[in-house]
Amino acid sequence: MAEFVSRREFLNLLAATGGTAAALKAGAALGLLPGGVAAAALDLVNPGTAGRRVAILGSGISGLTAAYELGKAGYDCTVLEASHRAGGRIFTVRHGDLIDEIGNRQYCEFEDEPHMYFNAGAARIPSTHRNLLHYCKELGVELEVFVGENNNAYLQDDSLLDGKPIRSNDYKTNVRGFLAEMLAKSMSSEEIDQPFTETEAEQLLGMLREFGDLSEGDLYRGSLRTGYASGGFLTHGVQKDMLAFRDLLTGRVGRNALAGFEGDYGPMLMQPTGGMDKIIAGYTRVLGNRMNYRAMVTAVQITEDGVDVAYDQDGVRHTLQADYCFNCIPTHLMVGIEHNFPADYVKAMKYVQRGRAYKAAFQARERFWEKDDIYGGISWMNNRSAQIWYPFHGIHKARGVVLGAYDYGGGMNHTEMNQAERIESHLQDGEKIHPNYRNLVEKPITIAWHRMNHMLGCSARWSRNFRTGWTHDEEALYRTLQAPVNGRHYFIGDQISMHSAWQESAIMSAQWALANLDERVRAKSA
Amino acid sequence: MAEFVSRREFLNLLAATGGTAAALKAGAALGLLPGGVAAAALDLVNPGTAGRRVAILGSGISGLTAAYELGKAGYDCTVLEASHRAGGRIFTVRHGDLIDEIGNRQYCEFEDEPHMYFNAGAARIPSTHRNLLHYCKELGVELEVFVGENNNAYLQDDSLLDGKPIRSNDYKTNVRGFLAEMLAKSMSSEEIDQPFTETEAEQLLGMLREFGDLSEGDLYRGSLRTGYASGGFLTHGVQKDMLAFRDLLTGRVGRNALAGFEGDYGPMLMQPTGGMDKIIAGYTRVLGNRMNYRAMVTAVQITEDGVDVAYDQDGVRHTLQADYCFNCIPTHLMVGIEHNFPADYVKAMKYVQRGRAYKAAFQARERFWEKDDIYGGISWMNNRSAQIWYPFHGIHKARGVVLGAYDYGGGMNHTEMNQAERIESHLQDGEKIHPNYRNLVEKPITIAWHRMNHMLGCSARWSRNFRTGWTHDEEALYRTLQAPVNGRHYFIGDQISMHSAWQESAIMSAQWALANLDERVRAKSA
Repeated sequence: MAEFVSRREFLNLLAATGGTAAALKAGAALGLLPGGVAAAALDLVNPGTAGRRVAILGSGISGLTAAYELGKAGYDCTVLEASHRAGGRIFTVRHGDLIDEIGNRQYCEFEDEPHMYFNAGAARIPSTHRNLLHYCKELGVELEVFVGENNNAYLQDDSLLDGKPIRSNDYKTNVRGFLAEMLAKSMSSEEIDQPFTETEAEQLLGMLREFGDLSEGDLYRGSLRTGYASGGFLTHGVQKDMLAFRDLLTGRVGRNALAGFEGDYGPMLMQPTGGMDKIIAGYTRVLGNRMNYRAMVTAVQITEDGVDVAYDQDGVRHTLQADYCFNCIPTHLMVGIEHNFPADYVKAMKYVQRGRAYKAAFQARERFWEKDDIYGGISWMNNRSAQIWYPFHGIHKARGVVLGAYDYGGGMNHTEMNQAERIESHLQDGEKIHPNYRNLVEKPITIAWHRMNHMLGCSARWSRNFRTGWTHDEEALYRTLQAPVNGRHYFIGDQISMHSAWQESAIMSAQWALANLDERVRAKSA
Repeated sequence: MAEFVSRREFLNLLAATGGTAAALKAGAALGLLPGGVAAAALDLVNPGTAGRRVAILGSGISGLTAAYELGKAGYDCTVLEASHRAGGRIFTVRHGDLIDEIGNRQYCEFEDEPHMYFNAGAARIPSTHRNLLHYCKELGVELEVFVGENNNAYLQDDSLLDGKPIRSNDYKTNVRGFLAEMLAKSMSSEEIDQPFTETEAEQLLGMLREFGDLSEGDLYRGSLRTGYASGGFLTHGVQKDMLAFRDLLTGRVGRNALAGFEGDYGPMLMQPTGGMDKIIAGYTRVLGNRMNYRAMVTAVQITEDGVDVAYDQDGVRHTLQADYCFNCIPTHLMVGIEHNFPADYVKAMKYVQRGRAYKAAFQARERFWEKDDIYGGISWMNNRSAQIWYPFHGIHKARGVVLGAYDYGGGMNHTEMNQAERIESHLQDGEKIHPNYRNLVEKPITIAWHRMNHMLGCSARWSRNFRTGWTHDEEALYRTLQAPVNGRHYFIGDQISMHSAWQESAIMSAQWALANLDERVRAKSA
């Protein structure tokens, strides 16, 4: 068994460098660090009357998880959140919401309806993210299916089929057909036959026929899997013409789509009904007045027996004395705040880099995708806007919110643009798939996470070289930053994980820190 | 362009005969019959005071569509339904419901909760079924996503991996990897390279690397697309061992699964929130007291200027004089009812055969699939029970209803079994995937559609030979049965379609008949 960087890191890399899967595979074998603690197993001991004050810095999901679990165990938590809202990169944008991008503040003008939102940050919950799902269940967050792959959505690439958008189904079915046909043909060559018995070769042929929907003679001659060209219900179905395989080889958007709905992005995925921030609302409902908004931390001093925190709230300086501190402020921001962290800790804080990510969304005047037989899912484009996400919530209602761009390759395309230029770029890109796009959408919202106030970055990045994997130094820095300072201060968040950009990682970082604290509290009281 | 039988017919055939995709491809080119009429275009003229009485025989979705549209236009409709409920093969089973299988009557004992149901008949709505979706929208039927493919669901085949269930993701990712590797290898052979330029060969290699997640040297060495063996969040992810391709070739359930979520069964699919019969409830809410239940038709006489219908309701004989009749009673039952249809019509009525289909469901004492990271979707088995469907509605609630068997190959396996034998067979089959299955499920329901009272069959079948497609005679019989008798009596339902077993086809058959009637009414009044 070998170890690799995460799929999301890899996708980021792909987008940034155009590298291929092979790039991923050179990851050096590295020693394992201690694993996460399952949420269900987290049962913190009551700390008693002394040593129960905890300062939680930042209300990303790791901070909220810490506050929630500590509160259950009898700790006295105070959550300090610099912005006007909780949740960090879990952000559902609705009517009236402020997008606090520095230099590009916007207020959302979508209609004030429950289905008129988009998840500007975290948007998918894989069914294997048990810890996040545990909290969804415990906090009563209703879940629904997230539609990623939709065979009726489009692929569009200027270098594919002269830029004409092609339904995902047409691309995929034809590619599968041709790959199967080629492989069936090649089975006559000794190279392929050699390792197989006659029975196995027959089995493989059977597999290829199913996989590619091959016609007689094991040739691909088109397939009804792409739907009918016409008829099919009251009259005989007419099969669509097959495409020329040569024409499907160009461009990269098709190749990406072949892999884009596998792994963490494959079915089945979920989202909370009504927006991802229903999870945040679940936490803050419990935390009540322990939440403090517009509370900007100005100093963190670790003392002999605790942590002193200073913060500004609405122009007034406050201080907070705590026995412990759980800190999910991005480390690259924390280094600019007054502190007395040890030098090796500061070195690790400075080492962590932050990714860039950019999303844009429009209110659609009508649900034009449904008229095109598209109910949810993602169209992929080989342009700056990259993706269009069609909402499946609010099916058949008058309007909806469509994601018009998702650039996770760094957001560099749009960072230097002003709002009008960003919007024009998405309108031009979208028109390549939906001819009347410009007139179908309105009330744009754009959000560049690396320019958002109090964050200035998207997911954390540790490894500088995706091809070779983490270095020994990076491992050491990670371990340093994960460990508590003086037993009092913990960094948490997806920045203390090897799979950043997922809520699951942020939660697990908090669970690790909680379990570490609990172990010492138990030892002390024993 | 060539014409073929429907995918569902093909799947039925596959299951029945074990044939391969090649079987489908010999379909003879046949002349097109008139196409369907889009629902949005249906705008029937008011018939005036004379000639407005319509008898609707049967309340399958085609009958309800006819009654709904005719009612909107000013016709006076009476719907006669033989059973205690409307909807025919659109049947959502809940607490207290009667399953009226002849010789095996059951009452459903599931908990009385909104999410505790299963769709015993129609269960999926493809996004291309525009006419059905039109009525869902018009009738205010709320839709949600149907989960078909779930990478975390299982494949189980006694002849695959010694019968050990394998996650769909593990099977699919490994197969894709090996197919890509083999093809990449074979590209050195002249046979493959020959038709491609050097650039195209590079593009194809790029496609294969993405498709198969190939490692260096274009070898498949396992993939993180299958998820981690361990770690991956706070520690480096450990890749699962790759499987031996040889071991994945055996059995047929894997091959079937490779094709099973394509075409009509591919994403994105929908279902009404709360059960498929919400569509039926939408119709009957509008139709009100035009609906007559337990009204068994005993005679249909076509007269010079109308249709006389006799029926029994609760032991009382009634007669109904109508100007027109829309009849969705299965033709193989209608031939046994007194009538005066012309001989060629009767010949066609007798020609239509009916398929068999069988489903079984259990109440689960707990949502054991969610503990196994499965949220919705289908596990495939190469045994009599064939499929297990996990509900995604009611995520994280205490219990759920799991489909324990779906045999669409004819239901022959279970037809001759009594209820206890059926249930034991599903328990044994399910235990091959979920070790404690027997103790996790209770309150079974089974339903053999070919034995259901007032139906005695599942979807209609016209073509006797799937390999060669419809014969000239079959075409003629179909046209005969589609055309009205004396301009007064129309057969409707998916029995008057070439794509039976779908609600869309039944609706389109009604729309065709309605448009045909309307044309004559308009001509007469002009």
